Amino acid sequence: MPTGHDTQARALPVSPSTGALRPLDLHEVRVTGGFWSDFQQRNATVMIRHAEDWMERVGWIGNFDAAVEGRLPADRQGREFADSDVYKLMEAMAWEIGRTGDAELEARFEALVDRIEPVQEEDGYLNTHFGRPGQQPRYSDMEWGHELYCFGHLIQAGVARGRTHGRDRFVEIAIRAADHVCETFGPDGLDTICGHPEIEPALAELARYTGERRYLDQARLFVERRGHGRLGEIWFGPEYFQEDVPVREAEVLRGHAVRALYLAAGAIDVAVETGDEELLGAVTRQMSRTVARRTYLTGGMGAHHEGEAFGDDFELPSDRAYSETCAGVGAAMVGERLLLATGDPAHADLVERVLLNVVATSPSEDGHGFFYTNTLHQREPGTTAAADEVAPRAASSLRAPWFAVSCCPTNVARTVASFGTYVATADDEGVQLQQLATSEVRTTLPDGCPVALDVATDYPHDGRVRVTVREDATRPWTLRVRVPGWATDGAVLRVDGAETTVMPGYAEVRRAFRAGDVVELDLPVRARWTWADPRVDAVRGQVAVERGPLVMALESTDLGEDVNLAAVEVGSAPVERDGQVLVRVRTAAAAERDWPFVTEPTHPDTVRDAGLVPLVPYHRWGNRGPSTMRVWIPEA
Amino acid sequence: MPTGHDTQARALPVSPSTGALRPLDLHEVRVTGGFWSDFQQRNATVMIRHAEDWMERVGWIGNFDAAVEGRLPADRQGREFADSDVYKLMEAMAWEIGRTGDAELEARFEALVDRIEPVQEEDGYLNTHFGRPGQQPRYSDMEWGHELYCFGHLIQAGVARGRTHGRDRFVEIAIRAADHVCETFGPDGLDTICGHPEIEPALAELARYTGERRYLDQARLFVERRGHGRLGEIWFGPEYFQEDVPVREAEVLRGHAVRALYLAAGAIDVAVETGDEELLGAVTRQMSRTVARRTYLTGGMGAHHEGEAFGDDFELPSDRAYSETCAGVGAAMVGERLLLATGDPAHADLVERVLLNVVATSPSEDGHGFFYTNTLHQREPGTTAAADEVAPRAASSLRAPWFAVSCCPTNVARTVASFGTYVATADDEGVQLQQLATSEVRTTLPDGCPVALDVATDYPHDGRVRVTVREDATRPWTLRVRVPGWATDGAVLRVDGAETTVMPGYAEVRRAFRAGDVVELDLPVRARWTWADPRVDAVRGQVAVERGPLVMALESTDLGEDVNLAAVEVGSAPVERDGQVLVRVRTAAAAERDWPFVTEPTHPDTVRDAGLVPLVPYHRWGNRGPSTMRVWIPEA
Repeated sequence: MPTGHDTQARALPVSPSTGALRPLDLHEVRVTGGFWSDFQQRNATVMIRHAEDWMERVGWIGNFDAAVEGRLPADRQGREFADSDVYKLMEAMAWEIGRTGDAELEARFEALVDRIEPVQEEDGYLNTHFGRPGQQPRYSDMEWGHELYCFGHLIQAGVARGRTHGRDRFVEIAIRAADHVCETFGPDGLDTICGHPEIEPALAELARYTGERRYLDQARLFVERRGHGRLGEIWFGPEYFQEDVPVREAEVLRGHAVRALYLAAGAIDVAVETGDEELLGAVTRQMSRTVARRTYLTGGMGAHHEGEAFGDDFELPSDRAYSETCAGVGAAMVGERLLLATGDPAHADLVERVLLNVVATSPSEDGHGFFYTNTLHQREPGTTAAADEVAPRAASSLRAPWFAVSCCPTNVARTVASFGTYVATADDEGVQLQQLATSEVRTTLPDGCPVALDVATDYPHDGRVRVTVREDATRPWTLRVRVPGWATDGAVLRVDGAETTVMPGYAEVRRAFRAGDVVELDLPVRARWTWADPRVDAVRGQVAVERGPLVMALESTDLGEDVNLAAVEVGSAPVERDGQVLVRVRTAAAAERDWPFVTEPTHPDTVRDAGLVPLVPYHRWGNRGPSTMRVWIPEA
Repeated sequence: MPTGHDTQARALPVSPSTGALRPLDLHEVRVTGGFWSDFQQRNATVMIRHAEDWMERVGWIGNFDAAVEGRLPADRQGREFADSDVYKLMEAMAWEIGRTGDAELEARFEALVDRIEPVQEEDGYLNTHFGRPGQQPRYSDMEWGHELYCFGHLIQAGVARGRTHGRDRFVEIAIRAADHVCETFGPDGLDTICGHPEIEPALAELARYTGERRYLDQARLFVERRGHGRLGEIWFGPEYFQEDVPVREAEVLRGHAVRALYLAAGAIDVAVETGDEELLGAVTRQMSRTVARRTYLTGGMGAHHEGEAFGDDFELPSDRAYSETCAGVGAAMVGERLLLATGDPAHADLVERVLLNVVATSPSEDGHGFFYTNTLHQREPGTTAAADEVAPRAASSLRAPWFAVSCCPTNVARTVASFGTYVATADDEGVQLQQLATSEVRTTLPDGCPVALDVATDYPHDGRVRVTVREDATRPWTLRVRVPGWATDGAVLRVDGAETTVMPGYAEVRRAFRAGDVVELDLPVRARWTWADPRVDAVRGQVAVERGPLVMALESTDLGEDVNLAAVEVGSAPVERDGQVLVRVRTAAAAERDWPFVTEPTHPDTVRDAGLVPLVPYHRWGNRGPSTMRVWIPEA
């Protein structure tokens, strides 16, 4: 493995040993205020506890106790992959403990380790669903068993723990599991793969954390094995788990979106650590086409409920958007890895879009409910989700407290807790601010030049980003601030009273910075109309509103009536007033017919000029009771 | 049971004892030429044999042999409901034998009975998937086991056999099965229902065939039991099998489309036979809303691949249209029952639409391939379906010879073989021609007045329907010919040289007909533009072409390039030339972008006036190799 960057002790989920940019870790970046600080606070005080409480309640944590007490399989609760959600919770806890040093959370983490540790078998195997008398044998169902998937999340949690706390007994559990995987599935072992990718990025990261190459070799083996038909036939076909085409030969992401994205993340990790430019190029091209043709305005991925899958190019129905929250997490994982590998800020644009419009959309404002899917058009308001009931997977009209398959809440929690690691990167020349958040950035360039920046911003609600330098440099270095792709019209950089218009990419200032220097970026955060490529048939004749990085939505709560027949006047720009974005809406009544297809063009009669109606940021919709909602609104 | 109509010996799948109209049976209507005769010929010579050969090949028929030879469950092939497809094949054979008296087919039918008969147990139970050592116990999985569903198809096949051949050993098998069902699930028996409705219309029809009320009572019990949560929780939620709301309280069809439609058919049968106006009214209203809001232009039903289900009102995506062939069969079943119950020809309009645009679309022109789903927009051409491979369920770009779940081919076969029974109805006042087909209609009115009509038409390709009376009437009676709902512009009735303009509904002539009288209906079968209700977001800004009852499609084979960026000029009517419908198409190139959402309206640049391009009837698309296809075309 290359050893350009320290990959072991840094408090990061992804710590490549080489690449265009080096990410700054949780100790180098503290998010201190604004949108992301509030979100992290909600995560720390509500969401993590919520997930823990629910997993106690539904017995997924109790599965480990049942294993110790010999009550399996009789008392096994949840789906075959239930262990993984406990691990994702622990990963969230580990980042949160690393971020804040919360002692009470540390005690809860240790209590979980107490319950899990005795379940691990002598050879490192650890799973509450397989291998005991009365259970299916180990690795007897590679298509659906999720054993390696569970190990992947255990290992990611272990790496998080190791990097934020040091190598302790939980880290050892993860390492023993990884050793078991390498022994069982190595070149001379079982020649197969897991139906759900996840072990790949986990093993690659463990290699980075431990410095031990064999984990990387195993990750590579899993990546290379996929796409050759090792897994058995399933209802959804081989593309569901990316068994249709070898990773380096594919042209686009396809099949189950979360599987495809986790696999892409692992393939990038393997490519970066092995210097495999062909593989990196292949995944980069696949992701580019996916972003250009198979991604919703929100950054959401997965157009099909059936198989939770990508659709064809440009097949992006609003009302059937699956756009699973976990696919949002996966897209951020892939985007971040490509950013680090290539330095191209367009990847950070995707990370921003998907974090603010998919990941941030999932949890309710009180942190006690979650969207699993993230539709762009809610046709029927649905009924109130019971606060104390497990919901079916795809409930989309209202957030639910927990799901029968509940991968999303813990995925959001671990992502939010580690958000600080997305904020800034560095290279030999200086530091790049990638995600704009009120924060303190403290690092040292490779030659020892100290960098200390305080970032103050109300982003994403406001476009002003003020960066104050807090330490004298020992030599000239370059500060880069990402100018998002949407900011094509009037972004301004101010340094020492001089203004420069900057375009998407990086705004940069190079100098021997002195403490007290101020660099200001002013992004044109104002509401704008957005149209879609004409091949997106689903939104033909419709328009969306974006404001800065936020996608906006029209909700019946604000319109005062159902949004399905609303239309919007696009003659002038959306109005901004008193902190709200308003658009002129006309509502209509459609003729009621026995048959909805007729021989004249159907222009609904306008029955009401609804005047200027406020939109809400999409990530905030559905927080005020049942509603109908549209992101794409017909043009009047 | 009312006994207004003879229900027993008539060669009909649906023979109500009362209702506005009495259907004419296979002995009263012979289809002698034209579209439907050709289709019946293809069914008789290819499709039925094809289904039989495939079920031998994949072992579904062999399951019965395996049962006799004690090789179950080891040798069981296919899904839990595989028996039902053998029964549907036998129903198709029975109608075909009834229609033509084909002796070779009769021998094949008897050979199948030889293999099935010994599998029936002493108490009437008959299923190759349940109840043997090593198999699940009988009725241990009401949600997914399909045992009553299989019995339903067995009973429908038995009724078909009884009504076309007389009560023989196969009919006795069906009756013993029905008796077993009544004993097991009667008022004092198992208080549950089957996850897939089908037993309901089957038992109701057996009551009509045998005259025995208890089958009707059992059907009614099943209908009334549904919607109260007797079945266990499943992934798709209770609406999947209509367990969410009692049948008489529901407002619209929902959940799995085929299940919903079969249940509606059974509920109508029960309502008609028990004089339950409330239930009939409820199902009629549900179907009306379903047709007005949840039905594709083709008559197809089921907007979701996930759960093969109805979507919300007006949620009708073209590219994800599930529109299962079997749902088309189900819609025809419901439409025909409502026609007979109410006399309203709008129900016959639906039957026509769905038979010509869904059921007729499924089989390939050579009869050796089938669509399971019937999309309205094919974005990618797909690859050639192997002629000798079982396909996954939802392959939609090309027809496949057989499916892992292969309900559709046999459903088409039984419907086509019994098509004659859709052609004409009668009441005390006369005869109604409902489906326009070249045919010989011979019946007797209740007072003995003979009716003999020869119908000659090239419908649906031509609008002229010539009805020649072949026998003198003994008194004045009324001939009605259905004028389809689309024929709003210039339908003409000619009698004795006098022309009358007629509107949708029935064109009627009342007189004491004499042999040689001629009545001509001239329907305005010409291509027309069709637009959708503005709430159908999926086709906003798009237009379709219909010609008479046929929905037309633009296929890449005719355009010479991919149809995804085609647009059509709607300034003038579609052109008809040399038997073709042509529209003026403009093709375009879309700018290739890294991100498909932009701040300017996206009007693709026209790169080519493709001139006048022929459309194909939708039911004929996909017969010339891989292609892309659109029913709804953007307006230029």
